[in-house]
Amino acid sequence: MKTLTIVKIGGQVLDDEKRKMAFLKDFAALPGAKVLVHGGGKLATQLATQLNFPVQMHEGRRITDADSLRVAVMVYAGWINKTLAATLQAQGQKAIGLSGADAGLIQGVKRPIGEVDFGFVGDVVKEKVNAPLLQSLLEQGIAPIIAPITADASGQLLNTNADTIAAVLAMAMSGFYQVHLVYCFEKSGVLLDENDENSVIPMMDEQFMHRLKEEKRIHSGMLPKLHNCFQALEAGVKEIHICRETQVRHIGKGSFRGTKIGLS
Amino acid sequence: MKTLTIVKIGGQVLDDEKRKMAFLKDFAALPGAKVLVHGGGKLATQLATQLNFPVQMHEGRRITDADSLRVAVMVYAGWINKTLAATLQAQGQKAIGLSGADAGLIQGVKRPIGEVDFGFVGDVVKEKVNAPLLQSLLEQGIAPIIAPITADASGQLLNTNADTIAAVLAMAMSGFYQVHLVYCFEKSGVLLDENDENSVIPMMDEQFMHRLKEEKRIHSGMLPKLHNCFQALEAGVKEIHICRETQVRHIGKGSFRGTKIGLS
Repeated sequence: MKTLTIVKIGGQVLDDEKRKMAFLKDFAALPGAKVLVHGGGKLATQLATQLNFPVQMHEGRRITDADSLRVAVMVYAGWINKTLAATLQAQGQKAIGLSGADAGLIQGVKRPIGEVDFGFVGDVVKEKVNAPLLQSLLEQGIAPIIAPITADASGQLLNTNADTIAAVLAMAMSGFYQVHLVYCFEKSGVLLDENDENSVIPMMDEQFMHRLKEEKRIHSGMLPKLHNCFQALEAGVKEIHICRETQVRHIGKGSFRGTKIGLS
Repeated sequence: MKTLTIVKIGGQVLDDEKRKMAFLKDFAALPGAKVLVHGGGKLATQLATQLNFPVQMHEGRRITDADSLRVAVMVYAGWINKTLAATLQAQGQKAIGLSGADAGLIQGVKRPIGEVDFGFVGDVVKEKVNAPLLQSLLEQGIAPIIAPITADASGQLLNTNADTIAAVLAMAMSGFYQVHLVYCFEKSGVLLDENDENSVIPMMDEQFMHRLKEEKRIHSGMLPKLHNCFQALEAGVKEIHICRETQVRHIGKGSFRGTKIGLS
């Protein structure tokens, strides 16, 4: 089976023009089939502020009303997605900008209203990925660049977590490829002390995660990312790493540094 | 050779939710391979106004500065493009939202600065269309939905006329398909008297256009559209019509009404 590398790039890297350009150069140079899933960054918040749309939060999580959804679609699936695709094309990497809403690439479901109504937010599962379309693009040497927007069966657009999209895509494609899922962000990996870049945990499994959680050494943003990782491994994804975006140039080499995610 | 129908839909139809939904239903029901090219409409102007970006015009033509470009990409390639794709998907029509910047679908060239600098505006030619990608999507039964944004070889995004994009795509695909290019807008066709919907010109050729131009019976917006049409016919596009968007359900039938464009 061929290898497929799925890279998720976080918003903070995209917000820094110089880091973004260096990352895209490395991504373009990465050999073999590849997919880029991108987050949002501060642009959406900036636009919402400029438009005087209030940003609604619940326990650190954003609530997506109709105005926020429009901003998310415009910024993520519009400006960021097309900028990334055009920049990669210019570097000789064939790249097609898509969202989950395109050709049913990832059909979402609007999150049911529980104690909190998160609004137009989508939940996704690996069974609702259009794998043949991705395969067809990858076989043409085209890298799909995927914005964190999906649509449900009724055509409603939904804001969707980019980490989860990357995991779900990795799971759906692992029947056809040996998938390497790489979460890139602004830190060197999962850190034992989040303020010490020299405390990278080389290998993380569920047991160790639970231990660190008890010791309150893992901050809240990392836990859903790790849950995505364990779920993906159980569904047959070959290899998963969490690392700094500068590591993309070392993928598949001995010089690669980051946190490897493993099953217990 | 199989038939490919390329429909261009104007902004005014998209601005009217009810007309838009009726049009999309008709487009979804259209048999065979098809492409939808969409314009902008008033949403971009609305967003620019909300953001206090001044709209700069020169002789009725918009000048695209960096801010206007960002608005155009967000609205056209983001909100409108993804809304159209998701709505069609929900109607059972496989639809992928793309811009010219994706996988080099249509590589543009920034318009040279002459007497006026139009800013980030793209000119396009049929030789710079990625026809194999379109073919691959069409063969999978997917309708490409194309936003009027392109990128140049350096990765610079460019605002690009949607009528011209439709013509250039029709020309590029006419080597592989019998292409029927249909410009849909809010009028019944090319009118002899622009205030009289009963004055539709059934057939228009270049000679007749020049005559009407001399009599000042064709308004300025129609002339570039007609020039695109004649160029497309000369490049091998099989059939071209200009009509009201409600005619899409009659395409290929005797009940179809509009202006047929022919060579002299």
